[in-house]
Amino acid sequence: MTEKKLILGLALHDGSGALNNAWRAPQVNPENYANFEANIRYAQAAERGKFAFLFIPDFPAVRGDIEHGGVRNIIDPMIALTAISQATSRIGFVATGSTSFQEPFNHARQFKALDVLSHGRAGWNAVTTSDPAVAANYGKPVAERSERYQRAHESIQIVQALWGSWQKEAWIKNQASGQYIDSSKLQPVNLQGKYVASRGPLAIPPSEQGQPVIFSSGGPSPHLLALAGRYASGFIGEVWTIEDGRAQRAMVRRAAEEAGRDPDDIKFFAGIMPTVAPSVREGLDRRISILGDTLKAQVPQLANMLGVQIDRRRLDEPLTTEQLSGAYPSRDPRSGIALDVARQGWTVRDILAHGVIDYHPTVVGPAALHADHIQEWFEAEAADGFWLSPDIFEDGVDAFVDEVVPVLQQRGIYPSDYIGTTLRENLGVAEQYGLDPRVVGTED
Amino acid sequence: MTEKKLILGLALHDGSGALNNAWRAPQVNPENYANFEANIRYAQAAERGKFAFLFIPDFPAVRGDIEHGGVRNIIDPMIALTAISQATSRIGFVATGSTSFQEPFNHARQFKALDVLSHGRAGWNAVTTSDPAVAANYGKPVAERSERYQRAHESIQIVQALWGSWQKEAWIKNQASGQYIDSSKLQPVNLQGKYVASRGPLAIPPSEQGQPVIFSSGGPSPHLLALAGRYASGFIGEVWTIEDGRAQRAMVRRAAEEAGRDPDDIKFFAGIMPTVAPSVREGLDRRISILGDTLKAQVPQLANMLGVQIDRRRLDEPLTTEQLSGAYPSRDPRSGIALDVARQGWTVRDILAHGVIDYHPTVVGPAALHADHIQEWFEAEAADGFWLSPDIFEDGVDAFVDEVVPVLQQRGIYPSDYIGTTLRENLGVAEQYGLDPRVVGTED
Repeated sequence: MTEKKLILGLALHDGSGALNNAWRAPQVNPENYANFEANIRYAQAAERGKFAFLFIPDFPAVRGDIEHGGVRNIIDPMIALTAISQATSRIGFVATGSTSFQEPFNHARQFKALDVLSHGRAGWNAVTTSDPAVAANYGKPVAERSERYQRAHESIQIVQALWGSWQKEAWIKNQASGQYIDSSKLQPVNLQGKYVASRGPLAIPPSEQGQPVIFSSGGPSPHLLALAGRYASGFIGEVWTIEDGRAQRAMVRRAAEEAGRDPDDIKFFAGIMPTVAPSVREGLDRRISILGDTLKAQVPQLANMLGVQIDRRRLDEPLTTEQLSGAYPSRDPRSGIALDVARQGWTVRDILAHGVIDYHPTVVGPAALHADHIQEWFEAEAADGFWLSPDIFEDGVDAFVDEVVPVLQQRGIYPSDYIGTTLRENLGVAEQYGLDPRVVGTED
Repeated sequence: MTEKKLILGLALHDGSGALNNAWRAPQVNPENYANFEANIRYAQAAERGKFAFLFIPDFPAVRGDIEHGGVRNIIDPMIALTAISQATSRIGFVATGSTSFQEPFNHARQFKALDVLSHGRAGWNAVTTSDPAVAANYGKPVAERSERYQRAHESIQIVQALWGSWQKEAWIKNQASGQYIDSSKLQPVNLQGKYVASRGPLAIPPSEQGQPVIFSSGGPSPHLLALAGRYASGFIGEVWTIEDGRAQRAMVRRAAEEAGRDPDDIKFFAGIMPTVAPSVREGLDRRISILGDTLKAQVPQLANMLGVQIDRRRLDEPLTTEQLSGAYPSRDPRSGIALDVARQGWTVRDILAHGVIDYHPTVVGPAALHADHIQEWFEAEAADGFWLSPDIFEDGVDAFVDEVVPVLQQRGIYPSDYIGTTLRENLGVAEQYGLDPRVVGTED
């Protein structure tokens, strides 16, 4: 049992859930994409479960099969989180914002405004964007990778400098003397990068946590690691196995050390899609009832992952001994999990309902199974915490909070209450205000 | 007595009030700039008074004497209004956003997200920005006027097209059939301007009012009138006299007609700074106690406005008969008002306390005086409504709502309840969704 407690975050998607077809589930109001009251309820449930943060992935363009799959995005990250901030008091907010198509001054202003009005609960998942559909919405071409990352470094440095431009002791607000500001402590930043620039200052005072927390997310490319190592206090990872988690977490920590930082100041989060149910069978049935025919469409991909032929008409039969003995995991990181599940004797439909081809490692079944997964990863140092994408938000967030969270607390690995009032305190990362002088400069 | 009812809006500034030194008033918490709960209370008071909208002027840079005058801005318009939307149900929101330094896709997304989550209460005051301090915050030069206005036309057209790109009947959300969207009704806009462009679509459904309402603001230059005439449903005016109001309102209406629109679809708002008090004397004393020494600094400007010499040491004496007989109004539109007040025999200090050098026409005294001013302008067709900048918000909003509003209602010129649930209904302007085909095209 370790002293360190794990950290949980909840990913907000489209108001229905992370499972394909979630909007069609009978317990879901299909208007939830625009019906914001639903997202507020989910946030309040997560807060009841002492989640440190809500995380909003973002992709500011239409993609995928919207005709049937829905719009798999939140309506707008900053507007959404600001609304939620008014109905919650402890949970933090991590919104994705692209450095590729936004001006640093706007990012600095909106994130710090949210940070101040939420009393220190804001975070910025600073990403780069290479998707042509997003670029087209801004009428711009996609920049090359090195340019995107150079602009990201410049943007984050400018944003952090603007955050520090209203210095901690600047706000005098002495009604008797009439001095509102010590204007020597509200000074321009005068940063001129190759791609972005800002004079400043930004006229927003420190929040209770000083300034918003920076996050990074994605696969651990050298460019992303250099960015995260310098600036990020949280890293939203995409990992499928404990081994991957351990390796990526170590890379992220090493990147922070190389930037002169304490590796404990960057927390690594692994994804998980929980389906909480009284038994594994009931959990699979819950998923099957929602996924419907979409499972059949995944058969060829499963066959590929295992290197075997699978007959689409035999969905309700397990793989034969022959199939199993010929199967071997492909290079897809999920294929080892798929093979393990197949060897347990589940039917093809059930193997797929285990989520082996989903976007996140999936746990299906009673609370103890979820707690086992989380505890095993956490104690193996494969993650400092998890970002959760429940199958169906309407009842899935409550189920996790009311059933899994108490088990984690009983096992002593999860806090029984918020550690503090700010996101920074609840993540356990160092105070910061303004630019960290150790990490200023441009990448080369 | 006319059938048409006047419309009121409340301008949100820095959390303290529109009067110089408002932050120093004893009833004001000097932390209100960052203490957002205060702004929420003011919004709720305005809603009690059936105000159609909150208006946020914006200047995204530090200016003026911040050492003593404070930061005369709201912390961030969209973040502020989103927070307020969660604590109100009828009042609308008009946020200023510059077309000069923002991407149309971001404006389209954030304003429509606010519109949807507030159930049809959002408006966009689409402005151009020529101030070098703002441009420097974006690391950009100030563009020439014709370029700024060309970009504004392009931006508004792209934003409106994106708002219409999720068509009214697009959202099927049929859980049984599995059709979420009719994707033929969620289509790109493919707009390519000279300065801005966007492909779209924007994946946000119509709000209860279709799409946000466009406002314009400022002095009636030909460029601004062309813009307002084409797109705006509200115009935030800067006028000092009934004659000015009549003239500018007529210009704005004519601009709408020239763009092929019904002139009743653009509402003209005159500014007013109310100080509500049991008597004029008590109102002046309230203002003098807050303004303090800043009044003395205005003496030279008053002397200029009236073309007379005024001794700074004789603040508590009226102008002499000699001074008055030699006085004449300068070209400053406020000087006629100043001369009228001077001729009533007020001391120099009291003349200044009447707000004759303030940013808005000022009314000081009991409720009936305010109602008289408003009624006179309204019935003279100098305004369709007013945007109010109370002296001190902490008690000034309540005083106006609880004392002046009932008088306006008794006089039959102000509605006793909200006309509808959306901003568009409460302004009495036509429904709109997507681009208005009559006004598409670029300016030349």
